[in-house]
Amino acid sequence: MTSLAESGKKKIEWVKKHMKVLNYLKNLYQTEKPFEGVNVAISIHLEAKTAYLGIVMHELGANVAITGSNPLSTQEDVVEALKEYGLNVHAERTLDESVYWKNIDKILETNPNIILDDGADLGITLIEKHPEKVKNLWGICEETTTGVKRYKSLFKENKLPVPVILINDSYMKYLFDNRYGTGQSTWDGIMRSTNLSVSGKVVVVAGYGWCGKGVAMRAKGLGANVIITEVDPIKANEAIMDGFRVMKMDEAVKYGDFFVTVTGDIDVITKRHFLEMKDGAILSNAGHFDVEVKVKDLEEIAVDKINVRNGVEEYKLPNGKSVFLLGQGRLVNLVNGDGHPAEIMDLSFSLQLEGAKYIKENHQNMKVNLSPVPYEIDEKIAQINLKTLGIEIDTLSKEQQVYLNSWK
Amino acid sequence: MTSLAESGKKKIEWVKKHMKVLNYLKNLYQTEKPFEGVNVAISIHLEAKTAYLGIVMHELGANVAITGSNPLSTQEDVVEALKEYGLNVHAERTLDESVYWKNIDKILETNPNIILDDGADLGITLIEKHPEKVKNLWGICEETTTGVKRYKSLFKENKLPVPVILINDSYMKYLFDNRYGTGQSTWDGIMRSTNLSVSGKVVVVAGYGWCGKGVAMRAKGLGANVIITEVDPIKANEAIMDGFRVMKMDEAVKYGDFFVTVTGDIDVITKRHFLEMKDGAILSNAGHFDVEVKVKDLEEIAVDKINVRNGVEEYKLPNGKSVFLLGQGRLVNLVNGDGHPAEIMDLSFSLQLEGAKYIKENHQNMKVNLSPVPYEIDEKIAQINLKTLGIEIDTLSKEQQVYLNSWK
Amino acid sequence: MTSLAESGKKKIEWVKKHMKVLNYLKNLYQTEKPFEGVNVAISIHLEAKTAYLGIVMHELGANVAITGSNPLSTQEDVVEALKEYGLNVHAERTLDESVYWKNIDKILETNPNIILDDGADLGITLIEKHPEKVKNLWGICEETTTGVKRYKSLFKENKLPVPVILINDSYMKYLFDNRYGTGQSTWDGIMRSTNLSVSGKVVVVAGYGWCGKGVAMRAKGLGANVIITEVDPIKANEAIMDGFRVMKMDEAVKYGDFFVTVTGDIDVITKRHFLEMKDGAILSNAGHFDVEVKVKDLEEIAVDKINVRNGVEEYKLPNGKSVFLLGQGRLVNLVNGDGHPAEIMDLSFSLQLEGAKYIKENHQNMKVNLSPVPYEIDEKIAQINLKTLGIEIDTLSKEQQVYLNSWK
Amino acid sequence: MTSLAESGKKKIEWVKKHMKVLNYLKNLYQTEKPFEGVNVAISIHLEAKTAYLGIVMHELGANVAITGSNPLSTQEDVVEALKEYGLNVHAERTLDESVYWKNIDKILETNPNIILDDGADLGITLIEKHPEKVKNLWGICEETTTGVKRYKSLFKENKLPVPVILINDSYMKYLFDNRYGTGQSTWDGIMRSTNLSVSGKVVVVAGYGWCGKGVAMRAKGLGANVIITEVDPIKANEAIMDGFRVMKMDEAVKYGDFFVTVTGDIDVITKRHFLEMKDGAILSNAGHFDVEVKVKDLEEIAVDKINVRNGVEEYKLPNGKSVFLLGQGRLVNLVNGDGHPAEIMDLSFSLQLEGAKYIKENHQNMKVNLSPVPYEIDEKIAQINLKTLGIEIDTLSKEQQVYLNSWK
Repeated sequence: MTSLAESGKKKIEWVKKHMKVLNYLKNLYQTEKPFEGVNVAISIHLEAKTAYLGIVMHELGANVAITGSNPLSTQEDVVEALKEYGLNVHAERTLDESVYWKNIDKILETNPNIILDDGADLGITLIEKHPEKVKNLWGICEETTTGVKRYKSLFKENKLPVPVILINDSYMKYLFDNRYGTGQSTWDGIMRSTNLSVSGKVVVVAGYGWCGKGVAMRAKGLGANVIITEVDPIKANEAIMDGFRVMKMDEAVKYGDFFVTVTGDIDVITKRHFLEMKDGAILSNAGHFDVEVKVKDLEEIAVDKINVRNGVEEYKLPNGKSVFLLGQGRLVNLVNGDGHPAEIMDLSFSLQLEGAKYIKENHQNMKVNLSPVPYEIDEKIAQINLKTLGIEIDTLSKEQQVYLNSWK
Repeated sequence: MTSLAESGKKKIEWVKKHMKVLNYLKNLYQTEKPFEGVNVAISIHLEAKTAYLGIVMHELGANVAITGSNPLSTQEDVVEALKEYGLNVHAERTLDESVYWKNIDKILETNPNIILDDGADLGITLIEKHPEKVKNLWGICEETTTGVKRYKSLFKENKLPVPVILINDSYMKYLFDNRYGTGQSTWDGIMRSTNLSVSGKVVVVAGYGWCGKGVAMRAKGLGANVIITEVDPIKANEAIMDGFRVMKMDEAVKYGDFFVTVTGDIDVITKRHFLEMKDGAILSNAGHFDVEVKVKDLEEIAVDKINVRNGVEEYKLPNGKSVFLLGQGRLVNLVNGDGHPAEIMDLSFSLQLEGAKYIKENHQNMKVNLSPVPYEIDEKIAQINLKTLGIEIDTLSKEQQVYLNSWK
Repeated sequence: MTSLAESGKKKIEWVKKHMKVLNYLKNLYQTEKPFEGVNVAISIHLEAKTAYLGIVMHELGANVAITGSNPLSTQEDVVEALKEYGLNVHAERTLDESVYWKNIDKILETNPNIILDDGADLGITLIEKHPEKVKNLWGICEETTTGVKRYKSLFKENKLPVPVILINDSYMKYLFDNRYGTGQSTWDGIMRSTNLSVSGKVVVVAGYGWCGKGVAMRAKGLGANVIITEVDPIKANEAIMDGFRVMKMDEAVKYGDFFVTVTGDIDVITKRHFLEMKDGAILSNAGHFDVEVKVKDLEEIAVDKINVRNGVEEYKLPNGKSVFLLGQGRLVNLVNGDGHPAEIMDLSFSLQLEGAKYIKENHQNMKVNLSPVPYEIDEKIAQINLKTLGIEIDTLSKEQQVYLNSWK
Repeated sequence: MTSLAESGKKKIEWVKKHMKVLNYLKNLYQTEKPFEGVNVAISIHLEAKTAYLGIVMHELGANVAITGSNPLSTQEDVVEALKEYGLNVHAERTLDESVYWKNIDKILETNPNIILDDGADLGITLIEKHPEKVKNLWGICEETTTGVKRYKSLFKENKLPVPVILINDSYMKYLFDNRYGTGQSTWDGIMRSTNLSVSGKVVVVAGYGWCGKGVAMRAKGLGANVIITEVDPIKANEAIMDGFRVMKMDEAVKYGDFFVTVTGDIDVITKRHFLEMKDGAILSNAGHFDVEVKVKDLEEIAVDKINVRNGVEEYKLPNGKSVFLLGQGRLVNLVNGDGHPAEIMDLSFSLQLEGAKYIKENHQNMKVNLSPVPYEIDEKIAQINLKTLGIEIDTLSKEQQVYLNSWK
């Protein structure tokens, strides 16, 4: 084995130890092999945890073809290791976007029955560019808020040909992955990239959805003073009641030491904002695409750009100040770190596995629609996780059940 | 004016200053008088904030008949003041439940078109005991988790004759009232009743719904070490990720210094639990009915019962230990305190007003069904609240809107 | 027994159950009766916990004379109860300051050997007004930051005739009473007085000493956004690193919804500040004297003053706005509440008892000086408290001790 | 310049941007050059921030000789860069301890007048092994709790020949570096080494001094459930009041997912503990020496040892379980990370600079003693830091000053 493959294998072995729900499911379905003969295509950030999902699917019988969902989050040692495990993998860490799309196409050559998607690139490419492959496709599981949004738009335009299970909208996903996963991994990425104090700093978090709530909660837990920007008045009220300041970005730019965008939208921080920032402001993005901090604007107005640390670019502005951009404005937790903690991805990927199993068993009766995993699957994953933690909870007595269902 | 009425009026004047959304709506509808000639019956814990809702409805034209929703949460000075304001009020603070039901009946004599309910006693009594009055009834607004549950059961049995707007399930209600309202007012009630330290104590919170989350969050914020009990595995996982210990009540009883039940169910703490508790454990309930801590069991096994402070009963147990019950096991924030903060009830009651207005304007086209307020109303209340706080937030540009609706 | 005395006795019985260290010491010294024949004079806020300290001292042999340390924090039912217990008590809840000083004088008529003081009024009055009584006085125990400051000034001017044990500067006092005690009881007092939400509010805390840290920590724990004002640059830096905004009071007045002063100094909020405040700002003080919020200025500029709730005065300002003052600017936790939690005062008062015992046993060899209790007493109280909580901690092995004392 | 030196220079340039107090002092003393001709020897963890301290001392005239204070925390690129800056540097990242001591000796060949020490190795080696060099030595500044302890032991044995300024015991050091620095950098190191969730985990922190407080506070802020072990009953009580569980290590080992030792003592986690741990427990140390987790015991009982990730060793135990040791039991924040944030070391190193300046100016009149920096220096650093942050605070009026100094 090459040393690159060995390094990747080590990483995979590590996460395997900590993805206990996935291991539980693997054991549960070991003899059944529910994915025997099923073509499963995966496009999720290709680091060790995703790799292990691929391996488990493979061990449960699937013909797995796998690539990343972002050209910069792919870890090359993990790719090499996956080849050793016998998976059909096409992925490269690259700045050349065309390579990314070429790999997507290669994956689609396998004529997938089920797609496990993250951001919707794989599924939408199949639907748009390879309509002839739709007939083999039973359904899609989508991991992220952004992908959900895209599939919903497609659906509204009557262009969605197969059912989509919204992993992202399932309880055991968004309550955990978006909040605790993004919360921790974003700050892990920022801290290791900068070696700067979070404590005592003003942190501006754009977006107070589940991801933004996680990022803000951890910033507070690390000693920061947090400002929230929002466009949704209900979420803005929540942020206020959680003790944060809420204001427009036009105002917040004056105060922020760190900025984290998590809106799922474009143009959150743009030209007019950069010039109002404090000298030394640190910019980062934890949303799916690199469009929240408008990097193009930054490139345009900067008089100089210097790589000052791994994953940290200094942009010298015409007003004499500098701002620092982390991970080129891409997902800071994946580009400048290792992504979400293993135990969190364990929950999300166990939902992916169960979602895929549900599609395989029910696709003939499923309507073309978008919905989270059935509630029973959410509960099942929750219960298995408690079991792996050795935690027992109360159960309802018959009297308690009756009472809950009574209006008397 | 009697001094009792004066005291009540003072209380009402105080909350009026702090219920700014309600005041905003009152001004907005002042000339329109949308409730002119409408019979509105209210059964909500009768303290100053509820009184002010009644007064505003009255000022906007409604014929208001008002009572409490729990015989022990009624404040007598507020009742007297309401009479001065010219409202039709029937309510007494009493331990005699029959008086409570007699008042409910008196309210129903007014043949309400709209009911603003809290716990569903008023609406269900009308439907069950006075079916002849159903024809005048356009719809019901229900305030609480418990009431929602009861109306849903009624609906399942096909016994619901009119639409119910689930105020409780509206964003600007459950995200705020249940969490921040219950969170603060529960601890306000416990602290002022006991003058004991929360810091350094083990607090057991039964139930990790929105109310339980609020109670646990504030216990942690006050320095307690919190244990959660749950029957729902998803919520149990959330509690773990929030840093709390999760275990069965059978185990938790050994550690708790304070117990707070917020499950909406019966028999959460019963005979077998009391005897396992530490000497001096403090028991309280923040759920709607006084059935969560099973007081009957406590009365049965206790060898003595002594009132040791306002709202605090000591039960001497046969094992030589004592436990202390707050507010007789009824809603501790209302019985041992003044209920939720004024600004929080402002949001909930503004939804009640808007819900009533929606029923008045749409009842002829509404299906018999249960649903939160239309999202536009939630957003409206959120926006008005930001306005009263002087806080401005971002708005989406056209490009941002297009992006959000695109799958490309 | 009068019903007033009964009410007081009930309160004392309640705190007795929760002052376990004091009970432990009472049992420990029951036969020894270390204060037999010793005249002990106490001037501490006269509510149930102080009363119980007096009773324990009395049971351990002391001739106790007791009064309050602030005319408005005295609870009359407790005074009546103390008479029943046979203590020599002179205290009245009054706005007439002369009554307060008359009671101080009556206490001094007993020719105390030991003074347990809170704010230094009793000790300084003896020294200044009754110099002939100094010869009987062995020493003083002082409870508060403010009293410590005053005795230190006296010492600097060479006017201190006896040693003072600085209870306040002892670890088991200031780390607990000032921080967790003031933190909780201040917010208990504010919440029960106002029934307003702390969550979502801007809270300005003036002073970031141990008391201010406690008040700020709990405000944050209750969901507020906290601003700190300070004059000490080191404490200001601490506040920043704890995630708070720090600014001048001139600036902070524009943002605050609640103000709490805890500086130990005068004129923290004055005329020029009131007029810059938001309409409806709530003012309170948690420092020893009613000089931090300059009430005189408020009285001077106000065009009207109305009592709007128990312990809440509305001041209508000439600019058309109102501000609300809690507890007349006196200690809000004592005037509008029951003071610190019982378990916290248990620690402070156990130090008072041990301090008094130390003076009794060592006064002949003590230098006229000011110092905390000897470290052994601090450790003893800490250990007894752990014991009453049933908590065991590690002990150093011989090897560990050797290592700690080695430079190798 | 070699690419290694370039990498080091980049790191130094980065921290230079964020060490604003040090830059302020450098500018302030630029013309004075207070260290002209002074031999300054530095032994502090040799990464970028220490390097920058060395460079500033050099620019202010000192003849700087510099090495690390732990053979594994030295960063080789930084060493190479320092050579380019013209400093006399002797340091290697190595597992061979003899190399470390050889470098210490080389530094001492420069006959230092002032030593800036971290852990006391440099100063004690001079005193013990090179007594002839004592005559040139004016004084020592010591950075850490551990070094302070060692110098105090030396002093007690009358072996200390020169004054020691206890940087560690200065306010602007221990309140910030020990608490916020260790708090953040420890978790940064653990998170990036493991990619595991802190949220939802049981974290055992051994020691609740300032460092332990920081580690525990951040663990809580990251969503962990924290258990504290202590030998000091006062600190144990603090931990309880902060909401943590406190117990003996013998008990805590059963619950912990992560362990962090910060006691400054030996044998905190030993043979009998490892075997009681949960399978997969993660062990780390944030105390100065690698003696807190007894690695020797672990090596002895383990049946296998595997490097599973950078800085993570798996020890397979005879009971079939595994535990994972981070950074070989050495300072996890420095060995598995980049050490404290730059802004925090800025404060500590500014104190070092000022301490050295104080020694240079006063050594002829200083007694052989141990003390923090004079209070004025602490205040000066605090004020400069506020200035660099653009934060203004209140100042005392004359009346306020008089009041604070009065007993009336």
